[in-house]
Amino acid sequence: MQKTTTNPKEGNASCCGSAGLADITGCRMSLYPLCDNFAGIILDSVAKVDASKVWSSTDHLSTVYRGRQLHVLDCARALFVYAWKENVHMAGNFTFSRGCPKDVDADHFFAADEQPCNAAALSMGNFYAFAKISFYALNTPDYMEHIRYIVELAGKHGFKPQAAHYVTMLEGSANKLFAFFDEALNYAGQNLSHYVLEATLSVNSPSNAKKA
Amino acid sequence: MQKTTTNPKEGNASCCGSAGLADITGCRMSLYPLCDNFAGIILDSVAKVDASKVWSSTDHLSTVYRGRQLHVLDCARALFVYAWKENVHMAGNFTFSRGCPKDVDADHFFAADEQPCNAAALSMGNFYAFAKISFYALNTPDYMEHIRYIVELAGKHGFKPQAAHYVTMLEGSANKLFAFFDEALNYAGQNLSHYVLEATLSVNSPSNAKKA
Repeated sequence: MQKTTTNPKEGNASCCGSAGLADITGCRMSLYPLCDNFAGIILDSVAKVDASKVWSSTDHLSTVYRGRQLHVLDCARALFVYAWKENVHMAGNFTFSRGCPKDVDADHFFAADEQPCNAAALSMGNFYAFAKISFYALNTPDYMEHIRYIVELAGKHGFKPQAAHYVTMLEGSANKLFAFFDEALNYAGQNLSHYVLEATLSVNSPSNAKKA
Repeated sequence: MQKTTTNPKEGNASCCGSAGLADITGCRMSLYPLCDNFAGIILDSVAKVDASKVWSSTDHLSTVYRGRQLHVLDCARALFVYAWKENVHMAGNFTFSRGCPKDVDADHFFAADEQPCNAAALSMGNFYAFAKISFYALNTPDYMEHIRYIVELAGKHGFKPQAAHYVTMLEGSANKLFAFFDEALNYAGQNLSHYVLEATLSVNSPSNAKKA
């Protein structure tokens, strides 16, 4: 979508407290509203998100948020929730990542406080979503064990994860899915030097009209 | 999209020659035509692909092809190319994978011959596409070296890869991008026990009207 930058902090490296390179949680996300008015929906949602507590940038393929995990997740959820429209089928693809050895000490912002900017999105995020997730634990021979943990964690969140080729399928409210992502990223941040969580959420699909 | 199965081989485990579990190349792909007629475009394209030389299944989130690399790539390219419509912005997300230790000896089909079924798509695949790719080499401490190789390979293919957060950006014709994927998967299959290549192609974006 349109190449716009919504954050005046772009290009600045900014850090507070003891945060460092290994603490930068990132999310690259793309919204796909399957309708003629896709551009308006995407741009309106990008503009609506308060990204003042992260670094953010929107390019022609995605929007990226980088900073503290809680604020990155807050923005990612808000961007998806604000783009939700009744009867409009939409998919959102999220790449959550942390710890890449080639990450750069730039393009990040760590807000000092823990107050999310987009709490208002929470009240709008109870719609049903179908999701597929893939978890990649890099640089560890125990990567399958970590994947198993993440899938079991999804089960504990009540999603009844279904194994499918190359992904695990989940379904539930958007809010609950993001709460699960938060806990999965907590686990990953504590146990892995480098991880990637790929997630795609689908809403209002005509294939799932009965459930949605 | 619609839960349809296009392949009568679904549910059958089928193997020929010396192919085994570690030889199953898979692609899970999702099409996102950003227009009101998304369902028609997706379903028409799924129906148009000749998937007789792979195992295939379409669920509510994606279509999966599994079998020999050349036939899986042939089907994936065809599904994307057949869905391309003039002036319709579309993204296609591809998860290519091979070697997961938890893969199952089912849902695959290895055609004996090397004649692609969808060669006709080649003549339609010269349109311009913007792409982001991420390569994950699992179960190896040298994973960053393998990523570097894949990015350099993209450079050799003339894509002038651009580093971006969590992805590498490429641009070129769809045909050339799939030719690169083929060579990247060859390398990965020869050098890694388990890999994932995530790729997203975007066409006809209003953000790139001048280039597309």
